[in-house]
Amino acid sequence: MATNTRYLGLIDRYRSRLPVKDGCRIISLCEGDTPLIQLHNIPRNRGLDVEIYVKFDGLNPTGSFKDRGMTMAVTQAVSDGSQAVICASTGNTSAAAAAYAARAGIRAFVLIPEGKIAYGKLAQAMMLNATVLQIRGNFDDGMSLVKEVASETPVTIVNSINPYRLQGQKTAAFEIVDALGDAPDYHCLPVGNAGNISAYWMGYSEYFDDSTASHRPVMAGYQAAGAAPFIAGHPIDNPDTVATAIRIGNPQSWDKAKAAEKESGGWFDAISDEEILATQRMLAGEEGIFAEPASATSVAGAIRDIKSGRIPSGSRIVCTLTGNGLKDPDIAIEQCGKPQIVDATLGAVESAIASAF
Amino acid sequence: MATNTRYLGLIDRYRSRLPVKDGCRIISLCEGDTPLIQLHNIPRNRGLDVEIYVKFDGLNPTGSFKDRGMTMAVTQAVSDGSQAVICASTGNTSAAAAAYAARAGIRAFVLIPEGKIAYGKLAQAMMLNATVLQIRGNFDDGMSLVKEVASETPVTIVNSINPYRLQGQKTAAFEIVDALGDAPDYHCLPVGNAGNISAYWMGYSEYFDDSTASHRPVMAGYQAAGAAPFIAGHPIDNPDTVATAIRIGNPQSWDKAKAAEKESGGWFDAISDEEILATQRMLAGEEGIFAEPASATSVAGAIRDIKSGRIPSGSRIVCTLTGNGLKDPDIAIEQCGKPQIVDATLGAVESAIASAF
Repeated sequence: MATNTRYLGLIDRYRSRLPVKDGCRIISLCEGDTPLIQLHNIPRNRGLDVEIYVKFDGLNPTGSFKDRGMTMAVTQAVSDGSQAVICASTGNTSAAAAAYAARAGIRAFVLIPEGKIAYGKLAQAMMLNATVLQIRGNFDDGMSLVKEVASETPVTIVNSINPYRLQGQKTAAFEIVDALGDAPDYHCLPVGNAGNISAYWMGYSEYFDDSTASHRPVMAGYQAAGAAPFIAGHPIDNPDTVATAIRIGNPQSWDKAKAAEKESGGWFDAISDEEILATQRMLAGEEGIFAEPASATSVAGAIRDIKSGRIPSGSRIVCTLTGNGLKDPDIAIEQCGKPQIVDATLGAVESAIASAF
Repeated sequence: MATNTRYLGLIDRYRSRLPVKDGCRIISLCEGDTPLIQLHNIPRNRGLDVEIYVKFDGLNPTGSFKDRGMTMAVTQAVSDGSQAVICASTGNTSAAAAAYAARAGIRAFVLIPEGKIAYGKLAQAMMLNATVLQIRGNFDDGMSLVKEVASETPVTIVNSINPYRLQGQKTAAFEIVDALGDAPDYHCLPVGNAGNISAYWMGYSEYFDDSTASHRPVMAGYQAAGAAPFIAGHPIDNPDTVATAIRIGNPQSWDKAKAAEKESGGWFDAISDEEILATQRMLAGEEGIFAEPASATSVAGAIRDIKSGRIPSGSRIVCTLTGNGLKDPDIAIEQCGKPQIVDATLGAVESAIASAF
């Protein structure tokens, strides 16, 4: 007979390493446990002598890494008696907040930038029954508003300034070490609000501190060139990039992310929108992995830095893919030609196939 | 130190139970191993005394259960020296074929019905570098054409008439038994081309035959009312439903699916489009699970049959959610109101929140 091995989510798996009260009700959608996929074709086609993996967090329940933090934040909110959560969001956080609030049976309010949210993310927040407020402003404006509202209203902020969020997100580092048997040499991430790079560093450090990992990786954070405050050295006012998930000018986890850079001997760098989209197509067309544009930033940066020697040959590298490509179908469709329309006849189909070879 | 436990996909996990040649190159995107999520709120809110789970196969790499079969079909195609795969598709199969062909480095040709494919699925097939032919016809016309083309051209059919597809898909039943420690009492599925119900039955039967499971579940297959040939008792010519993934009038696995029904003591039934969409919203709004419309068919059928007593109280039930809600953002957006647009001021946001309570 089989034995019961049902996966119950990341709090269940990593409970001893997470600040969860005994006996509290866990709000979970079986998030985490996402695949670590080795890239074969991309390094081979470019003659890159590295072992490179993507942590595909777009396969979480709502299609992004945000679920890792949200299971913790909403579990804590419910434990504290909260009846509503609120967040500012470029889209992924709102989907996660809406989903976990629904699962918990509480309300979710999400503030999204007007007209700059990916279509799939809007669909999620609406279907998942959040109250969606599109503000006449950008993410950073929304973030300021959420802080003000939460100081006056009994709603729990579930942006990554909520410390439980990063606690949940650090489990991605645990999973990577558990999967590989040790930490990678380099870890490459897209950087927007800078919570995720901070959370990974926390996770790697905890595993290193108790010798579960023999070392910690060098952390490389990549921002979209039009939304790159870490490269500018200061917050920027009007961030702009096709990678809407990281269209953020004033990262909330600035100090933590800078500490991760310094302590790991890592770096931040900027990637142009053209490079982001080319890498998104590369991942899809050469490896069969469809991630959202922001996700491609990590792989774009890794490839550039492998080619330049900044990441040396022989390295073991993990790149985080933060979100699912289905989150932003418009960007995908815009980049491709139109499908051919053909008659439903053998001749028409055969000639279309012949012309494609 | 941690030990290496990286998940390598369903062929690696279930290799002894799959027809895979020794030493052949495995084409995998780490598919399978999807969550089995227990529904809490839906049964509680309705006073239903059952233990009910959803197998969320929308969290596979391309967002549907089709990846399970495609890893097998493309692995075999590559092993046979094939340079191209072809399929007819309502969208999910085409995304999976495109992804695994890209991973393998071979070509994919997909025939989709004109104007009746979900937006996210089209985005996937295009980004994943398939040659997409929209035919002036429906899925069944495409299926006939694919068979003709494959008989004259050196391309491998990867529709579910390819026997390796069902072999891969049967692993979902293995995972469920492995997760629960035994087979459920009832298994509810959406039925379109009828390959998946056939594959599940095969998987449950294999585990039962060698006593890994103590019994096999009753299989309940649910079709969209406008595309319900098993209810009509014969193929139908112009299937129509909002659940595009099961908009199929002439199921290719007719005999296998009828055998599963008969051997398991199960049934087929029809679900209206209204019921499908209401259940899609119920899953999202009450449990935080956003699945595509076709997926909701299984849960709609289960709830109806639990209420009627056809599925008795105390039963343990698994419903398959075949695809991710992000596959079809239009359907989601159409069902919801528009987001409120508010000024980026504290007063505007607070009054919008107050009015929502």
